[in-house]
Amino acid sequence: MSGRLIVFEGVEGCGKTTQLQRSHQWLKTLSLSVIVTREPGGTDLGTALRQLLLNVNTQPIYHSTELLLYVADRAQHVEEVLKPELANGTIILCDRYVDSTVAYQGYGRGLSHSLIAQLNSIATRGLESDVTIWLDIDVAISLARKQYQSTSDCAERSAGGDRIEQEKIEFHRRVQQGYTELAQNHPNRIVRVDASRSVAEVQEQIQQILLQRFPEIRSKSKS
Amino acid sequence: MSGRLIVFEGVEGCGKTTQLQRSHQWLKTLSLSVIVTREPGGTDLGTALRQLLLNVNTQPIYHSTELLLYVADRAQHVEEVLKPELANGTIILCDRYVDSTVAYQGYGRGLSHSLIAQLNSIATRGLESDVTIWLDIDVAISLARKQYQSTSDCAERSAGGDRIEQEKIEFHRRVQQGYTELAQNHPNRIVRVDASRSVAEVQEQIQQILLQRFPEIRSKSKS
Repeated sequence: MSGRLIVFEGVEGCGKTTQLQRSHQWLKTLSLSVIVTREPGGTDLGTALRQLLLNVNTQPIYHSTELLLYVADRAQHVEEVLKPELANGTIILCDRYVDSTVAYQGYGRGLSHSLIAQLNSIATRGLESDVTIWLDIDVAISLARKQYQSTSDCAERSAGGDRIEQEKIEFHRRVQQGYTELAQNHPNRIVRVDASRSVAEVQEQIQQILLQRFPEIRSKSKS
Repeated sequence: MSGRLIVFEGVEGCGKTTQLQRSHQWLKTLSLSVIVTREPGGTDLGTALRQLLLNVNTQPIYHSTELLLYVADRAQHVEEVLKPELANGTIILCDRYVDSTVAYQGYGRGLSHSLIAQLNSIATRGLESDVTIWLDIDVAISLARKQYQSTSDCAERSAGGDRIEQEKIEFHRRVQQGYTELAQNHPNRIVRVDASRSVAEVQEQIQQILLQRFPEIRSKSKS
């Protein structure tokens, strides 16, 4: 018995969280065993690390520190949540995984790609996603969406976005470039979805990808 | 103008903290610019990480997570405290540094020594101590000391010691073996001090080492 690790990736405001919740609802209606988790923050320890990483009120965090904290969060998440749930046959919908570290800390911050690959390997011990859905959207549009949310949305965003969201647009463009190159280098694992389309259209496309990839979802969908 | 990085190392209960404070007092009486810091916990971020790492009440922390958190704490400490203070000409007395990670996570936990060396190198960017004082003591004696303290001492210890202190004696013996081999491999950087002797005798020996090594301390001591 082995589950599936389905990862959602993309820049801020790409619609990851919305789509992840919609996929969650859909898979639950098919009576599949499915959970939602995220990085950073998929464990109790990770929740504490997420607060340290994303809280704008703390002192500046150096780039190498930031990288190591993201990877520490991942190491704990893989051992405490991902591996046991996969062994139980669960379908896991995960908000960000190894590609985020490559895109944000590698392309965005300019840290060494080989160092990041090494650290990701330490944290995951080789656990790859079964598929990574990359919600591709122009950075100008995604940041505008985020800004709109921040004027209407929840408390976490009310102060004008968290630390990563406040980075300059050039940073987010480099991150976007990172996702583009990652998708080119991993054409089987990473599937690009045009996230500029409507929520319903994007949702439909993700469902088609999951139906096509995973026979256990297909068979439940037919029954 | 360049300061000095003086590190104190050893197993739990070796007397590090006491000796560090005594050296601090002594160097202050010589009108030298001196600070005391520690790992983990030498920065605001590090203080939060220290609580996560040493708090027995949290969920189990996996060994790779633990290693990455110690190294993240170090990366922040080096950039935020050690490098700027050294550039200011400060003498830094630091409670634990890279050798603790080798001894505890490498020898104690059995994690890869080459991995630890790589991570230490990322965190320190090559910053080595000017001298490392290793307070060498038999583990049975040091743990007995700690136990005695915990029945009389401060709140942090009142619950019977933190997570690391509660490890089995075999773990602490492996850590001790780690320090022994480190001292053999780095005879210039690491100086062994017999920590089974009285506090005053150990203090005297440390003062002699510092006077011998550092002309700026020697000249202040004579004047």
